[in-house]
Amino acid sequence: MKRIAIDMDEVVADLIPKHLTLFNRDYEETLTIEDLKNTKLKFLRPHLHDEICGYLEDPTFFRDLEVIEGSQEVIQELHEHYEIFIATAAMDYPTSFTAKYEWLKEHFPFLNDQNFVFCGNKSIIHADYLIDDHPNKFEGFVGQGILFTAAHNLQETNYVRVNNWQEIRAFFLE
Amino acid sequence: MKRIAIDMDEVVADLIPKHLTLFNRDYEETLTIEDLKNTKLKFLRPHLHDEICGYLEDPTFFRDLEVIEGSQEVIQELHEHYEIFIATAAMDYPTSFTAKYEWLKEHFPFLNDQNFVFCGNKSIIHADYLIDDHPNKFEGFVGQGILFTAAHNLQETNYVRVNNWQEIRAFFLE
Repeated sequence: MKRIAIDMDEVVADLIPKHLTLFNRDYEETLTIEDLKNTKLKFLRPHLHDEICGYLEDPTFFRDLEVIEGSQEVIQELHEHYEIFIATAAMDYPTSFTAKYEWLKEHFPFLNDQNFVFCGNKSIIHADYLIDDHPNKFEGFVGQGILFTAAHNLQETNYVRVNNWQEIRAFFLE
Repeated sequence: MKRIAIDMDEVVADLIPKHLTLFNRDYEETLTIEDLKNTKLKFLRPHLHDEICGYLEDPTFFRDLEVIEGSQEVIQELHEHYEIFIATAAMDYPTSFTAKYEWLKEHFPFLNDQNFVFCGNKSIIHADYLIDDHPNKFEGFVGQGILFTAAHNLQETNYVRVNNWQEIRAFFLE
């Protein structure tokens, strides 16, 4: 059975809407996802870099993110034909461990927590495929990287790209 | 550069002495490491299984464990010749994430936290070697398993065995 490793943030967990909402509220801005095309909030407002990253250091930030549309249904279906691991770069925000774990248990109860991986450098992942929104996570990865479209990666052309979970379903199951 | 993945508990973090001390105190026993040869505390006192595992669910349990003798010096030396990852089955005790992370930062400050992996099933680890005290962690592991001697694994004969960190040094550097 082939193995698919799946990133969390911006692949199954919808981080940007919450991040933007908190930022707009606190800094009286009206930024939208359109403003984040080919960039990130921290690059768009570099003078607020630490504050912008600070939201993600709140131990509860990752606990109530929305689930990316279609990810639950498609992963449940993939789970019957592939070995599924969740591989998240949790070491970037060590305060997020518990929230990320609880979030996965809540929204993906059919996955075994022995298949959760909180890591940093994803070249440590031994899998046939890695679905991730950050192309740099494919560096040194032994399998095939599959780029999940996010505002910040629209210009990347080096990898197979999927725009949503229906396209992932088509790639793996059709 | 070849890559070595290293388990935490009973390989770099000395879990058993603290566990035994707490158990002996609370249940008025005088068990020693000798009593754990080829077994584990939870098998030796099965009627107290939940209580015995309960100690490890305390979020602070893993924070103040002693460092296994020689591990810091040898890992620092290995670090010059190999890519070092720490791979711990933290999903067994999800309450342990923060304590394990802080412990590693304190005792192995020369390691990059991007090389810490909190996982369950270690077949996900892509490395040339895995040093672990649990032989079942080598199932499906793509590299060579190296068994670190612990009381519970004395009868295991299927893997290269190292009895201490000096033997690891000899294996990798001599």
